[in-house]
Amino acid sequence: METSFLLAKINMLMTSDHSSVVSMNLFVALLCACIVVGHLLEEYRWMNESITALAIGLCTGVVILLTTQGKSSRLMVFSEDLFFIYLLPPIIFNAGFQVKKKQFFRNFMTIMLFGAIGTLISFGIISLGAVHIFQKMNIGPLEMRDYLAIGAILSATDSVCTLQVLNQDETPLLYSLVFGEGVVNDAASVVLFNAIKSFDITHINSRIALEFMGNFLYLFILSTMLGVLAGLLSAYIVKKLYFGRHSTDREVALMILMAYLSYMLAEFFYLSAILTVFFCGIVMSHYTWHNVTESSRVTTKHVFATLSFVAEIFIFLYVGMDALDIEKWGVVSNSPGKSIKVSSILLGLVLIGRAAFVFPLSFLSNLTRKSKYEKIDLKQQVTIWWAGLMRGAVSMALAYNQFTRSDAKLRGNAFMITSTITVVLFSTVVFGLLTKPLVRILLPSTKYFASTTSSEPSSPKSFTQPLLSNGHDLETHQNGKSILRPSSLRKLLSTPSHTVHHYWRKFDDAFMRPVFGGRGFVPFIPCSPTDQDDHQWL
Amino acid sequence: METSFLLAKINMLMTSDHSSVVSMNLFVALLCACIVVGHLLEEYRWMNESITALAIGLCTGVVILLTTQGKSSRLMVFSEDLFFIYLLPPIIFNAGFQVKKKQFFRNFMTIMLFGAIGTLISFGIISLGAVHIFQKMNIGPLEMRDYLAIGAILSATDSVCTLQVLNQDETPLLYSLVFGEGVVNDAASVVLFNAIKSFDITHINSRIALEFMGNFLYLFILSTMLGVLAGLLSAYIVKKLYFGRHSTDREVALMILMAYLSYMLAEFFYLSAILTVFFCGIVMSHYTWHNVTESSRVTTKHVFATLSFVAEIFIFLYVGMDALDIEKWGVVSNSPGKSIKVSSILLGLVLIGRAAFVFPLSFLSNLTRKSKYEKIDLKQQVTIWWAGLMRGAVSMALAYNQFTRSDAKLRGNAFMITSTITVVLFSTVVFGLLTKPLVRILLPSTKYFASTTSSEPSSPKSFTQPLLSNGHDLETHQNGKSILRPSSLRKLLSTPSHTVHHYWRKFDDAFMRPVFGGRGFVPFIPCSPTDQDDHQWL
Repeated sequence: METSFLLAKINMLMTSDHSSVVSMNLFVALLCACIVVGHLLEEYRWMNESITALAIGLCTGVVILLTTQGKSSRLMVFSEDLFFIYLLPPIIFNAGFQVKKKQFFRNFMTIMLFGAIGTLISFGIISLGAVHIFQKMNIGPLEMRDYLAIGAILSATDSVCTLQVLNQDETPLLYSLVFGEGVVNDAASVVLFNAIKSFDITHINSRIALEFMGNFLYLFILSTMLGVLAGLLSAYIVKKLYFGRHSTDREVALMILMAYLSYMLAEFFYLSAILTVFFCGIVMSHYTWHNVTESSRVTTKHVFATLSFVAEIFIFLYVGMDALDIEKWGVVSNSPGKSIKVSSILLGLVLIGRAAFVFPLSFLSNLTRKSKYEKIDLKQQVTIWWAGLMRGAVSMALAYNQFTRSDAKLRGNAFMITSTITVVLFSTVVFGLLTKPLVRILLPSTKYFASTTSSEPSSPKSFTQPLLSNGHDLETHQNGKSILRPSSLRKLLSTPSHTVHHYWRKFDDAFMRPVFGGRGFVPFIPCSPTDQDDHQWL
Repeated sequence: METSFLLAKINMLMTSDHSSVVSMNLFVALLCACIVVGHLLEEYRWMNESITALAIGLCTGVVILLTTQGKSSRLMVFSEDLFFIYLLPPIIFNAGFQVKKKQFFRNFMTIMLFGAIGTLISFGIISLGAVHIFQKMNIGPLEMRDYLAIGAILSATDSVCTLQVLNQDETPLLYSLVFGEGVVNDAASVVLFNAIKSFDITHINSRIALEFMGNFLYLFILSTMLGVLAGLLSAYIVKKLYFGRHSTDREVALMILMAYLSYMLAEFFYLSAILTVFFCGIVMSHYTWHNVTESSRVTTKHVFATLSFVAEIFIFLYVGMDALDIEKWGVVSNSPGKSIKVSSILLGLVLIGRAAFVFPLSFLSNLTRKSKYEKIDLKQQVTIWWAGLMRGAVSMALAYNQFTRSDAKLRGNAFMITSTITVVLFSTVVFGLLTKPLVRILLPSTKYFASTTSSEPSSPKSFTQPLLSNGHDLETHQNGKSILRPSSLRKLLSTPSHTVHHYWRKFDDAFMRPVFGGRGFVPFIPCSPTDQDDHQWL
């Protein structure tokens, strides 16, 4: 048979020097397939690109498994470097670049509450549950450190998947809350994970807890500052030298390189690179993006989105392919019942751990919000709880880091890795599939918005978008309609809690924009009503 | 001192696990520096980005050398994979994407003559010269194979550097000849190099020569076909599924991935990947590019240019840094006089080898050209000879491949590697610096063109460009001016030698465009004069 010959040839080549070329070919071809299939399935509201990529990855894994007679199911060894150095930066940077800044900063305190305190609560519940249940189950030798690690690993929300299931234009509040939480959560997870590895956690006391808090604050503030500085530097350079005069390509290259430099510098200083590149994206979209030529704007907007899109697909394709890796399943295949039990328990703990902080913290957050429209109602709380349940590639990478350094053949380690994979696959596929319908059922008012926004997702920074939004906003205001979101936005703007934003705008216009550029190069003139309206959406 | 402490820290880190992060940081920062400095030096007509990058790379090499007390001068080990798998594809694809197709295909036979026969002549002269001179010089044990390899290595024109010193808009004929030659030349070099490694070349007879010819033709035709097929497939998919309906990012991602896939497939089948991706770029700009949305067009145009730009700077930065690597110079430093002698002899052979085919083959090519304006005059021949003298990263990569596999400490091998580096540096810096002024002195008529074209270099495929060119063209025609280039173009179009192009256009409009799309989705209507005029520039 033709195919079997071809597969045998591929098999032969995979063990030779040529193997990297073969696997890259297959990977690139599979990426193309994912894009085409994802496009064809776009009409079905249940599907999204992640699940398509996961499914294609799983199928490919099965094919490779059969071809190699059960020896291997993957084309490359999962490398943390590949993930953290090449795939994650474009995704997070793009999220910062395209996030609705106003929405994000308005909910800043709630996001911090969810991201920092919430992660701690979730971590505590999962770790405690794992200690109590697994110690009775005889799943192999696991230290206290391992139980704490699994808590930290499964507290890391998958911001990549969140980006796919929630739409910034449809549900701006939820998007900013859940995604913002995911970003802060990452910093918390990194601190937690490093703390577990380095601190002596057998006897936790108040000193260690304080040290831990200090560590988190230090990490958070320094990472943010680095990102902001990198963004401002890029804005200043582009404004001062005016690259567009000679070539658009230089501007685009400089923006990409500076963004990447901020990420790598954060890695260099052992900071949270994800936080850094996120804030770098925000600053770049606020200043640098307005300083470049028009074609650079179009290019950067789409380039960052494309890079992020490809990186996302790559991750899910890889996770799907890697899930079948036979070595890891070998140890646990003797006791399939126990394996399923462990996975279900962990999944249950994830569900409880998230519920345990979303609802109480939402209640707390609501206490500070005076307007009725501002409050996070129960339906929204359920959506926040649900949309943050997905676990993704970050969890997988951390699990590999923790449970393969020591002998991977150990029963306990094997159980932890396979359970993590099961939780990742199950949560991504099942929760991911159900999120879109759930949002539509719980929050039907968003339909109106879905129809008014353009077909391009997550591109609020297009030139026409702010104008369009403004027009629409004014219209509904004049007609006196009481649609939930715009009117609540208007209310929000009039409340005193937004004095911080008011002062920021004053400061921005007086000191920042003259130096770093920004919309239209010129400082903001407060007497122009159009400009002011425009400003609200910035 | 602050800096010495920092450098000591960097030094310490470079030997640790953190080293890859450090070197990436430095590399990205240096890339940014190159872009900024290159921008600032743009006004000086002698400089170009390659030389800036080379200089910065050399300076960094010196700094690292001093910091590490002469142990190392580079941040990464030169990797052929990095060069051939990541850096070269975007450069060559972009060249195909932005090349003036009409100009390229009109000179196709001349390009083939230069690229295939010319490389053979150059290879023969350099190899023979090396055998005769070096055997008397006692520079260590070198086999016949090594002499032939040095001939093949130094026959590889650096198409990357050519792109930088020649301007497509200023000197379209020379650009297409020299650059096209560089691309074909690559295929010839690959064949030559592989032939030297596998054939028994001690007794060359007619059978081997024939086999060699057949091998080259096979490689050339298959590589071209693969590239054309990949391009057509992408055009068909984009046209059929119309991705822009859902998202621009999908289109951009698919174009990038398909182009890269063509390159990797060619590598997989041991073809000339450079030829493949070059033709893929040509087909994509002819069909696919016209099928996508407007924002995708702007994005892809600039993205390909930016990627190519960054990859070029990266290569020169790296070559500059690597040139100082102390290990290689250690062996030859005992006999500096001999080292300089070997390098000068090789440089002289390169000069003679190129002269030996440019002038005779130009004469041959002129015999087939009837019009006086078509002929390649002596000044142009000199420019072609000069502009193709630069040797670059391809030569370095091949030299590493040949002379480090066996023991690098061997005297002969060390001489060959250091001489190759010297030739590369000298030719890039000296010949590169002199090319721009030389072109201005020898071909002053191009000044007029330089002023009329837009400030964006190498972007002939912009929407407005064809219209602008047409307008300008029509104007000069009406005014009856006799400027060299446009009038010769007009003459060329009326000569019978372009019947091939005429039939291709007919075929394109009747069969290809209805299936694969292309400008405006609609088939070409021959009765419209504007459209026809437009067509000439396609």
